[in-house]
Amino acid sequence: MLSKNTVKFIKSLHQKKYRNSSQRFFVEGEKSVLEVLNSNFLTETLFATDQFLEKHERFLLKLDLEVQEVTQKQLESMGSYQSNDMALALVKMKENLPIRPEEEEWMIALDDVRDPGNLGTIIRIADWYGIRKLLFSSQTADFYNPKVIQASMGSFCRIDFSYGDLLSWLEKYQGPVYGAFMDGENVHGFQKIQPGVLVMGNESNGVSKAIENRVSQKLAIPSFGQAESLNVAIATAILCDNLKRLENYA
Amino acid sequence: MLSKNTVKFIKSLHQKKYRNSSQRFFVEGEKSVLEVLNSNFLTETLFATDQFLEKHERFLLKLDLEVQEVTQKQLESMGSYQSNDMALALVKMKENLPIRPEEEEWMIALDDVRDPGNLGTIIRIADWYGIRKLLFSSQTADFYNPKVIQASMGSFCRIDFSYGDLLSWLEKYQGPVYGAFMDGENVHGFQKIQPGVLVMGNESNGVSKAIENRVSQKLAIPSFGQAESLNVAIATAILCDNLKRLENYA
Repeated sequence: MLSKNTVKFIKSLHQKKYRNSSQRFFVEGEKSVLEVLNSNFLTETLFATDQFLEKHERFLLKLDLEVQEVTQKQLESMGSYQSNDMALALVKMKENLPIRPEEEEWMIALDDVRDPGNLGTIIRIADWYGIRKLLFSSQTADFYNPKVIQASMGSFCRIDFSYGDLLSWLEKYQGPVYGAFMDGENVHGFQKIQPGVLVMGNESNGVSKAIENRVSQKLAIPSFGQAESLNVAIATAILCDNLKRLENYA
Repeated sequence: MLSKNTVKFIKSLHQKKYRNSSQRFFVEGEKSVLEVLNSNFLTETLFATDQFLEKHERFLLKLDLEVQEVTQKQLESMGSYQSNDMALALVKMKENLPIRPEEEEWMIALDDVRDPGNLGTIIRIADWYGIRKLLFSSQTADFYNPKVIQASMGSFCRIDFSYGDLLSWLEKYQGPVYGAFMDGENVHGFQKIQPGVLVMGNESNGVSKAIENRVSQKLAIPSFGQAESLNVAIATAILCDNLKRLENYA
C-alpha cells in the first residue's frame, strides 16, 4: 500500500530545498528508470506498475531493491509526467566530489546556465560526444531537477559532474580553456585543436567577465544569416561537434 | 478601450482552428513585435503599453498601423507570456505559396516535426545559417503556434516556408536530397558537398519510408559516447553547421 506520507514526500522532491535536505531525487518513465537502475546511482525504492514489473521481471530479480507496486494514476500524482504507466525511482543524490582533470581530455564547464531544459539537453550532448566530466557554477540549474533528468534522456547516469567555484577551479587547471563568444575565432577555421575545457555561458549574459579572463581561446560559430544568437544548448552541440571533428578527422 | 470581444478573439488564436478560420495569429514581446513590424508580414493591430509606445514612438510614426494602448495585465491576459510589459501584435497569416528552388541553394524539409519548440528552434537555426526556404509536411507543427513564434526569436520573419506534400515536392526536385539517419554516412568524413535539400524527420520515428526513398545521400552525426540519439533541433543545427562549413571552408 502506498502511504499518503510517501506520496507527499515524493511530491516534495519537485522542490530543490526538499531534494537537498533529504538528499533524494526521483527519476520517471521506463527508459530513464531502467538507466538509473543500471547505473552507479543508488535507487532506494522503485514504484512501478504491474506492467513494468512483469516486463522487466528477470532484470529486477537481479537487483536488491525495495519495490512498491502502484497504479498509473499514483505514478502521475507523485511525479511530473502527465502520462506515466511504467515507473518512478526514488534515488539517492551523489556526493558533490571535485572533478579531477586528466590530460588530453575534453570537459564542459557551465557558467550559470539557468534553464533546466538547457542543462538536461547539454548533458545529453556531452554523452553523445563522449565528454564525461562537467563542471557547473553554483548558479547553474540543479542537476536533480525533474526537467533536467527528463531532458537528459538517461544521459544523466553517464556523466560525472561537480558544482563549485568555476573560477578557482580554472585557476588551478593547466590545460587550454575554450569559451563560446560572439567575437571569438571562427571554429570552422581551425586545423587542429588540443583537448581542454569548453566554457559555455549564461542564456542572457554569456560567459562572465571573471571567467572570460581565464579563457585561453575564444571560439565563435560562424553565422551565414541574420539570427542574432543561438540557444546555449544548440551552441554547445555545434562546438562539441567541431571540437571532436578537429580531434579525430583533421 | 480594449473590448471584451477583442480579448476573446486574441485568446481564441491560441488554438489552431481559430487561427485558420480567421487567418490571423499573434506575436508577443518587444523584440519579436519589432521584428514583425519590420517584416513583410501585415500587422493589423498593435496592442502596446505606454512604455513601448514611448520608447518606439519615432519608429511607430513611420508605420500605418492601428494602435491600442493597453496595460501589462491586459497583454498577459491575451497572450501566452507570463510576463509581457511591452506589446502584442495581431498579424495576418501569409498565403501558403509553393517554394521554388534555385540552383546551388540550401533548403530544409521537415517530415512531421511535431513539437512547436523544435520547429521554432529549427527556424532560428535556419536563419543563423542563412537558409531561407523551409518545406513542412502537413503533419509538421503549426508555424503560427505562439510557441513556435516564441522559440524562433524573431527568425520567423526572415524565412519563406510552405506546407504541403513533401513527397510530391521532392519528386519534382532536381537537386541532391540529404537526410538525417542513424545509419547514414559520417558527415565529418565529407570533403565537399553540393547544396540541396536537408530532410529532418519526426521526433520518434525519423524520416518516413516514402521520403527515405527520395533521399540521395544519408547523413549521420558521429557519436563518441553512449547517448542513443540527439534531439531533432540539435541534429539540424549540427548538420547545418557541417554543410555550411563544407560549402565555405573545405
